[in-house]
Amino acid sequence: MQIPCSIEQALGRKYPEPVVLVTTRAADGRANVMAAAWVSLASSEPWMFVLGIDVDARTYEVITQTREFVVAFPHEGMAKETLHAGSHHGHHADKIKDAGLATQKASIIRAPLVQDALANFECELVEIYRPGDCPLVIGKVVAAHVHEDAGLRRLCLVGPDYRLGGLRPA
Amino acid sequence: MQIPCSIEQALGRKYPEPVVLVTTRAADGRANVMAAAWVSLASSEPWMFVLGIDVDARTYEVITQTREFVVAFPHEGMAKETLHAGSHHGHHADKIKDAGLATQKASIIRAPLVQDALANFECELVEIYRPGDCPLVIGKVVAAHVHEDAGLRRLCLVGPDYRLGGLRPA
Repeated sequence: MQIPCSIEQALGRKYPEPVVLVTTRAADGRANVMAAAWVSLASSEPWMFVLGIDVDARTYEVITQTREFVVAFPHEGMAKETLHAGSHHGHHADKIKDAGLATQKASIIRAPLVQDALANFECELVEIYRPGDCPLVIGKVVAAHVHEDAGLRRLCLVGPDYRLGGLRPA
Repeated sequence: MQIPCSIEQALGRKYPEPVVLVTTRAADGRANVMAAAWVSLASSEPWMFVLGIDVDARTYEVITQTREFVVAFPHEGMAKETLHAGSHHGHHADKIKDAGLATQKASIIRAPLVQDALANFECELVEIYRPGDCPLVIGKVVAAHVHEDAGLRRLCLVGPDYRLGGLRPA
């Protein structure tokens, strides 16, 4: 039986949800990383992602300039790095270094791969929509990479207050 | 260390991901349900969802006509119902009955709530974008409801071939 409630209260039931890391590299060569939870596939031919990226984020600013970014799936052992990426601003900091993330050269674009991630997707910007208060960034996947260890599991938001962790089948 | 691969191979590492049920009610009164895995929040003021809904789906057709739908989070015990909703077409079938789903009247819109879901969100259509091969349906949440049992857990896609189940912290 359903009981009426506030939208925020109902959204409190949304866990678990996966998180991604998004990397960029500005024209001056500086790379950056952020964490995002508003993410979904958006097309299969060609493959695209849709990402909600705050208009005040350094990542948003760089994507509008360079029109490219990497979507990476962190594994369940990367909670600390992902929390750092998701809770600091990148305008005046080297978040990749501060988060303790190793990177690797991508094949096609200039933004770096996250070396320890489960998978990395090099994306070229298609369009930015803004139906509400958050820009929806659409990226076409132009190259993909996986970690050599196929047994890694994805990191998820497992509860409120940015609680991150791994999961196992019930 | 990252190894280059096909996009499909890298997407094979995406699990777990949550699924939702989407209900509609056509002008003739017939309600329908589908399952969707391409879903994310899209705005917080006001709250909005973005959903990838195939152009051939009955749900897509009805949303373009009625401009409203419900997003419901199935709980981990609803794998069978969700799989039915996600693997049959709704043009000529009563999928809600065939899936064994009980429904309940919504507060504001005509599409029904899923009675056993963790949470239900009544949505009004804002816009439809189509950056690639799939329409992205943006819905503004106008009312929300939760199951009276706050201990239910969300149903997720836990692996390929539509493997659905519940999860526990590692």
